[in-house]
Amino acid sequence: MALNEVTISRAILAEQSRVLLDYMETDAAVVGGGPSGLTCAALLGERGIKCALIEKKLSVGGGMWGGGMMFPRIVVQEEARRLLDRFGITYREYGDGYYVARSVEAVAKIAAAACDAGVEFFNLTTVEDVMIRGDGKVSGLVINWTPVDMAGLHVDPLTIACRYTVDATGHDATVARMVERKSARLSVKGESFMWADRAESQILQHTREVYPGLVVAGMAANTVAGECRMGPIFGGMLLSGERAAELIAANIPR
Amino acid sequence: MALNEVTISRAILAEQSRVLLDYMETDAAVVGGGPSGLTCAALLGERGIKCALIEKKLSVGGGMWGGGMMFPRIVVQEEARRLLDRFGITYREYGDGYYVARSVEAVAKIAAAACDAGVEFFNLTTVEDVMIRGDGKVSGLVINWTPVDMAGLHVDPLTIACRYTVDATGHDATVARMVERKSARLSVKGESFMWADRAESQILQHTREVYPGLVVAGMAANTVAGECRMGPIFGGMLLSGERAAELIAANIPR
Amino acid sequence: MALNEVTISRAILAEQSRVLLDYMETDAAVVGGGPSGLTCAALLGERGIKCALIEKKLSVGGGMWGGGMMFPRIVVQEEARRLLDRFGITYREYGDGYYVARSVEAVAKIAAAACDAGVEFFNLTTVEDVMIRGDGKVSGLVINWTPVDMAGLHVDPLTIACRYTVDATGHDATVARMVERKSARLSVKGESFMWADRAESQILQHTREVYPGLVVAGMAANTVAGECRMGPIFGGMLLSGERAAELIAANIPR
Amino acid sequence: MALNEVTISRAILAEQSRVLLDYMETDAAVVGGGPSGLTCAALLGERGIKCALIEKKLSVGGGMWGGGMMFPRIVVQEEARRLLDRFGITYREYGDGYYVARSVEAVAKIAAAACDAGVEFFNLTTVEDVMIRGDGKVSGLVINWTPVDMAGLHVDPLTIACRYTVDATGHDATVARMVERKSARLSVKGESFMWADRAESQILQHTREVYPGLVVAGMAANTVAGECRMGPIFGGMLLSGERAAELIAANIPR
Amino acid sequence: MALNEVTISRAILAEQSRVLLDYMETDAAVVGGGPSGLTCAALLGERGIKCALIEKKLSVGGGMWGGGMMFPRIVVQEEARRLLDRFGITYREYGDGYYVARSVEAVAKIAAAACDAGVEFFNLTTVEDVMIRGDGKVSGLVINWTPVDMAGLHVDPLTIACRYTVDATGHDATVARMVERKSARLSVKGESFMWADRAESQILQHTREVYPGLVVAGMAANTVAGECRMGPIFGGMLLSGERAAELIAANIPR
Amino acid sequence: MALNEVTISRAILAEQSRVLLDYMETDAAVVGGGPSGLTCAALLGERGIKCALIEKKLSVGGGMWGGGMMFPRIVVQEEARRLLDRFGITYREYGDGYYVARSVEAVAKIAAAACDAGVEFFNLTTVEDVMIRGDGKVSGLVINWTPVDMAGLHVDPLTIACRYTVDATGHDATVARMVERKSARLSVKGESFMWADRAESQILQHTREVYPGLVVAGMAANTVAGECRMGPIFGGMLLSGERAAELIAANIPR
Amino acid sequence: MALNEVTISRAILAEQSRVLLDYMETDAAVVGGGPSGLTCAALLGERGIKCALIEKKLSVGGGMWGGGMMFPRIVVQEEARRLLDRFGITYREYGDGYYVARSVEAVAKIAAAACDAGVEFFNLTTVEDVMIRGDGKVSGLVINWTPVDMAGLHVDPLTIACRYTVDATGHDATVARMVERKSARLSVKGESFMWADRAESQILQHTREVYPGLVVAGMAANTVAGECRMGPIFGGMLLSGERAAELIAANIPR
Amino acid sequence: MALNEVTISRAILAEQSRVLLDYMETDAAVVGGGPSGLTCAALLGERGIKCALIEKKLSVGGGMWGGGMMFPRIVVQEEARRLLDRFGITYREYGDGYYVARSVEAVAKIAAAACDAGVEFFNLTTVEDVMIRGDGKVSGLVINWTPVDMAGLHVDPLTIACRYTVDATGHDATVARMVERKSARLSVKGESFMWADRAESQILQHTREVYPGLVVAGMAANTVAGECRMGPIFGGMLLSGERAAELIAANIPR
Repeated sequence: MALNEVTISRAILAEQSRVLLDYMETDAAVVGGGPSGLTCAALLGERGIKCALIEKKLSVGGGMWGGGMMFPRIVVQEEARRLLDRFGITYREYGDGYYVARSVEAVAKIAAAACDAGVEFFNLTTVEDVMIRGDGKVSGLVINWTPVDMAGLHVDPLTIACRYTVDATGHDATVARMVERKSARLSVKGESFMWADRAESQILQHTREVYPGLVVAGMAANTVAGECRMGPIFGGMLLSGERAAELIAANIPR
Repeated sequence: MALNEVTISRAILAEQSRVLLDYMETDAAVVGGGPSGLTCAALLGERGIKCALIEKKLSVGGGMWGGGMMFPRIVVQEEARRLLDRFGITYREYGDGYYVARSVEAVAKIAAAACDAGVEFFNLTTVEDVMIRGDGKVSGLVINWTPVDMAGLHVDPLTIACRYTVDATGHDATVARMVERKSARLSVKGESFMWADRAESQILQHTREVYPGLVVAGMAANTVAGECRMGPIFGGMLLSGERAAELIAANIPR
Repeated sequence: MALNEVTISRAILAEQSRVLLDYMETDAAVVGGGPSGLTCAALLGERGIKCALIEKKLSVGGGMWGGGMMFPRIVVQEEARRLLDRFGITYREYGDGYYVARSVEAVAKIAAAACDAGVEFFNLTTVEDVMIRGDGKVSGLVINWTPVDMAGLHVDPLTIACRYTVDATGHDATVARMVERKSARLSVKGESFMWADRAESQILQHTREVYPGLVVAGMAANTVAGECRMGPIFGGMLLSGERAAELIAANIPR
Repeated sequence: MALNEVTISRAILAEQSRVLLDYMETDAAVVGGGPSGLTCAALLGERGIKCALIEKKLSVGGGMWGGGMMFPRIVVQEEARRLLDRFGITYREYGDGYYVARSVEAVAKIAAAACDAGVEFFNLTTVEDVMIRGDGKVSGLVINWTPVDMAGLHVDPLTIACRYTVDATGHDATVARMVERKSARLSVKGESFMWADRAESQILQHTREVYPGLVVAGMAANTVAGECRMGPIFGGMLLSGERAAELIAANIPR
Repeated sequence: MALNEVTISRAILAEQSRVLLDYMETDAAVVGGGPSGLTCAALLGERGIKCALIEKKLSVGGGMWGGGMMFPRIVVQEEARRLLDRFGITYREYGDGYYVARSVEAVAKIAAAACDAGVEFFNLTTVEDVMIRGDGKVSGLVINWTPVDMAGLHVDPLTIACRYTVDATGHDATVARMVERKSARLSVKGESFMWADRAESQILQHTREVYPGLVVAGMAANTVAGECRMGPIFGGMLLSGERAAELIAANIPR
Repeated sequence: MALNEVTISRAILAEQSRVLLDYMETDAAVVGGGPSGLTCAALLGERGIKCALIEKKLSVGGGMWGGGMMFPRIVVQEEARRLLDRFGITYREYGDGYYVARSVEAVAKIAAAACDAGVEFFNLTTVEDVMIRGDGKVSGLVINWTPVDMAGLHVDPLTIACRYTVDATGHDATVARMVERKSARLSVKGESFMWADRAESQILQHTREVYPGLVVAGMAANTVAGECRMGPIFGGMLLSGERAAELIAANIPR
Repeated sequence: MALNEVTISRAILAEQSRVLLDYMETDAAVVGGGPSGLTCAALLGERGIKCALIEKKLSVGGGMWGGGMMFPRIVVQEEARRLLDRFGITYREYGDGYYVARSVEAVAKIAAAACDAGVEFFNLTTVEDVMIRGDGKVSGLVINWTPVDMAGLHVDPLTIACRYTVDATGHDATVARMVERKSARLSVKGESFMWADRAESQILQHTREVYPGLVVAGMAANTVAGECRMGPIFGGMLLSGERAAELIAANIPR
Repeated sequence: MALNEVTISRAILAEQSRVLLDYMETDAAVVGGGPSGLTCAALLGERGIKCALIEKKLSVGGGMWGGGMMFPRIVVQEEARRLLDRFGITYREYGDGYYVARSVEAVAKIAAAACDAGVEFFNLTTVEDVMIRGDGKVSGLVINWTPVDMAGLHVDPLTIACRYTVDATGHDATVARMVERKSARLSVKGESFMWADRAESQILQHTREVYPGLVVAGMAANTVAGECRMGPIFGGMLLSGERAAELIAANIPR
């Protein structure tokens, strides 16, 4: 069979246009493709909830790729081991209750699970603002291409509607801070010192709907709450992503 | 269980030091974690060959993440469909013999396969030079941390030994060009015009050992050969990665 | 009527997707939206030829906006006055045979004419390569988003097919140089000294098909020919654009 | 006729010097050449009011060129359709009451209308400060070349006098913020969330003289008022430009 | 003897991995390898206290290398002469009580003394945060590679535990400011005007434990206290380093 | 008297427009306002020759301001002392035949002399190209604003006519290299090693008309000739400027 | 006479070392070599006061070189004409009471006058801090090489003593702001709107000792006072420089 | 004793001026303060030869600080162990004949030895060119401040005379390449592949006078000879520095 460049281009364009038009309205939009965002999206998808994952960079995975100080290993504690098992990530035990996994495998397997669950990925996409209408609810995201922003160009964004937004942008807590800047009703306290034990035990409690329509997950949850930070220990991240998915699923019954 | 930051750090460090010391000598080193490099590494690993994948960036996946013009879809032709199936990548047919897959899924699934096959990943790692000793064979890679290079710092590299090196660095053909610069015995012709059909049909032929110990795969193969380029059509890439793995496996019987 | 952001986004997306899919194949693609490119596109459109204008920047107009040394006036000589009249551009005579027009008006009116003639604009779009297949003819353009290039990202391009390409990229002669780099059959001589009189009198002669399927217009024509350059005198540019349109129209009868 | 470079240069210089000296005093100065600024200038000119349009960049058009996320289409609602008609911009209806136009055509046609109305354009010109004298009125603009600013050079500005200044600089509200920084009598509230419906319905109300001699138009009006933002929907922009022109014309009878 | 690159690499890796794992827990961590930090580390080591010196840059020495305005000489007053003698640094007297030494010699000799005393150096290492657990004490440092930070990459840090931290980061007072940002219990006043005499006489008094587990030394001590700054006079720096070592040694008896 | 900003602006604009229009044609254009260029311009002016000095930077003076290694002193030898005296520059003798002057005074006094001689200065002006017409003579300069170039903007230049051009751009030999790039008739050899004695003794010989209409002076003369370079010794520079002025004056009798 | 590079270097070094050592203590240090600083230094020198002029850039002249918007002309009003005459600067009258001079001439002539008056120039020198000792008086300046600062290097400064410091740094009011940052006793109000008439009439009143030992002159005086700004009208600048010189001379009788 | 900032500044300035004037003429100038340069300078000094070490950066040590891939350890083989002993550097044996030392200690101890031997250091100093006079010998170095170069400023250099220059600038071979560019009598072949064994065994042979007055040492020697490169193995570097010192000492008997 002879290949045709134009047909290839048309195939990509037609397919993605169809998806884009379809995803102008979704049930959930997860912002940030790090460990908590990917987990949340995967579990939302598995529950049959239409979900878009919006990632600023070209690749998803966030802080997981680099492990700790570029040694590409991550650590997960006992409580989160079942999520490693669920995603099929292999690990080795190091001391009691510490499980060491490979960074690359962790990203690849959770992302693969999200794909299998039907999540659509919008990478190289930046969230510029949120849409809040008369009901005072975060009901959409104002998005643009990341390279447009990197190149300092003046190009207007588009808007997608979603019933729930998950801010899984890590300690930047990008979406929460946008809302804070324009509304007196949300205050982002900022992350506190490194204290992994406390950070991990508190993160699930802080994974919650902090503003109507806006759920925070992963380190963003701790940042909003003024809670401690953690290092390359990802168990709490994964559990927080799971919790965020459960919170949303409870409100969007299928 | 109470978490301890220092134990977490030590777990990562101990684990990765062990791996690093072990991988100072490998059977194969694949340079570049794009579609052909990942495929080659995965298939080498599946054949029981000890393989390190060296990736300059934080994440693997290369040009696959962005699809075509940031529309995150890739196209694969009939001949390569079996590789999609092998890696468990879903796709939709568009016209006769064109299969459209999601970029993110393609990266995630092939990387996951490589992990399952026991490949070790060295990301954020730049190849600075090759080691060639008295036998005139590429017998090792001179590596450094990518951020050291990005920051313009003067830090010496380390060297790893490998029986075979695969240059899967795309149209830069980085390793091949290094060899060309210092040796009269290899000439890199540079890529030609876009002509997908020809590029795909020729790529397998150009996937070969171009210098003792150095195999080229993917677009790097076409670049060395002065052959045409292709767009976001990845079948040939995957097939070329497979071919490179076969070539090496034939010489390193297990 | 209540406005809906998502409907607005969908309207833009649906409309432009339709246009993009349609323009994957065109009769003519004009690269560069400066004076000669805009004129060429407008006149092709007026002749009923399906034409895409591809512009690297956000705005079309090129070197016309800034006049001479930021004094936003351009000069046109007697021979080209009829084109000013045709596009409805006002001017004042300065000395015998020199007509001074406003830069902004010149851009706006020629671009408006191109729009009225049905030309489709692809701005923020960079030509990365050309497609040349077995017939040895420039038969398509390999394009990408400009901001992707500005941001230094690795994203694959798409390809559009066109029967004729016009290189109207000014003294860079971008497309012609791409062809030169990969083919022995075209040589770009580079522009010569400033000599407005000679440049203007020679430009029409150099506006021609320099490679199968590739027509050069405007300063790009003089650059390929090693001919003189001119300053903020735009008559020859407009006439060259007109000539290029005539050349193509003669080969694509409607 | 033989062309002479020096005559060409002199023609440009003489013509623009004449215009510059003439426009050291104008009735109205519109800052910002986006949709509202262009519309305002065009309609002021049509009413016979001497008007200078000052644009920071090389080209006018602002956010219109890029459409939404680089899909070069803009949307206009029913109420503003008559302005499209007035400027001769073609459009297609998408759903009830949404009209989609081409970005390039919109810019070209409104700019052409402004030219026809006698507006003078000062592009590549930055407003550094405003002139306020004893009467406490914004009575002039302190301008400089944009490239001087981009290059970080220390060059003094010049000053032009104008009876009315229109701040049409979009959500930067550049001129209003300058006044705010140095005077307690104006407060810029900053734009609020995306809510196109509200933004569009409120913009006309916020288009007003916010400080003696200073009228705000377009998104700058909403920014000063702390009002919502909109996306690539430009009807309100055009209507706001029209309203600003009417306000000024009412005070400068001809 | 034939050299082997891989053995060399393995030697470095094995040796440093051993040291890194050992220094995940230390008695003291000195942050900043300028005059006070080097002196403090050297004297801690001489007292048998396990000490890590963490330096952001490739080389230690800080502000000493450049002398005053790149004239590579430093001045030390009478009181600190005994430390020059202790480290074997030669000097010349200039006027009464001023001793001029060579910058390079000063750095080399104090660093050599620290090495002889068994201090381990972690250069190209940035302190990102501190670890504070339930006891409210600075009990560890969150570190990362400096080039990772310079390259703007997202890579997680590791954590080392230490009983005492010395902030010897000069007038940035980096560690003290980190603590200040996240805790209400420490206030950094910022350095005052240049007044060498006062700065030198006060520095010893300000060298103290400003937060549980955190000792400030050198200019950082004066910065926290809002005290005056000094120029290229280093006596007080060395004496402050000595004082900090004494303070810690008094609490960690060997 | 009450000051009026607009009158001030108009005064500047009117005055400089008049000068610009007048200097579109000059007898001589000196490119580069360093020691040789300033001297040449001053002496041309004193001979009644209409002369424009074109300087790329904001200030004239070039390499003289910084003396040697930022010690703002220059040295002049015996032969050139009469030029110091002529311009009223004070100096001190250092050893036999070496005269040390202050950098700032040297620039100020020679520039003042040029002003007194009626030279017009065009600073922040870059020479982009030269005009060569049918007679094969450098008969004009293609100029642009330097900040336009620094900001990377696309703005067309203007052209001024001059009977003689002096390239006094130092070891860049900017104008000579432009001519070399486009013509086979001039070859720039590039400067040789530092050898002040030889450089100074040869410079007058190399100060000559190297191409019809183009005279080289100062270090540019030695660069074209492949001659040695000198350091902060300026006697030869001044003498070369004088020689260039004499050469031109001999051909433009007044 | 044969030239010797080393003797030349030694001459420069010996001469400037002598000057530097001598100027470690001066009567007055003028910071900023723009119009008011140069005038002040020239007039201090003429009164026999030992004066150092410290300029951040390579060249003195500041905002005068560029005239208004790069048209290199400045305007001076009637009151200041006598200073033009005093420095020998030529001018043309434009309307009643406005005198237009050439930028380059103005810089050159005032700088030449300062040289003749014995002022020593320290260019490429940045003021990093001020020295304030027990008497609470600004009694010295903490200086460094500007390139050290531009290159982001960590090099300690040196300190020079002076009885009076003049802040002539323009609207940055650099020295005054340094004092403000570290002392509650000085407040810099910041410049107000453009209003040339008021700015010029108030500047002399604001030229005063704002802190013990610190006199402000030129636009810095207006900035400290919260007074209006002016454009390319330099009369007030020169008069303010004169006033500052008078204030200091009255306190340092010779 | 009360400290005085100005006396401190004067002490530094007076002392360094004295040294600078003295070192305008030296026996030997070593360019580059890495392992071979430091060793060479230390051993020249020990032999009583007047020696200046010129280092581009703020700190000496070069590639030694970073060890291999930021693991701050270096390796030395058996042959060079006596130099470690000579400089008092401690080490541990790793396998047969490999000795691992700490990077920081190696730099500090060799630099300290150079200081003790009376070497003067000129850091932050760039070699811009060499001085070659009638005898065709490299007889001096043209130097400038590094920050001047980093800031892109135009400041003239100074020149120092030396009987011998050692190029110890590593694989840049900076000085040798300068000579190559301007003279046909020296050709720099460029470094070859990594092959530590060969590189180390050849380096002493290539350490020689490659041009009259110019000796190459360390990796620069191998670069000139087209020889192999090595990694973080420093024995050959130290031995090459020793050899260069011996070569020079043989020609400058004391």
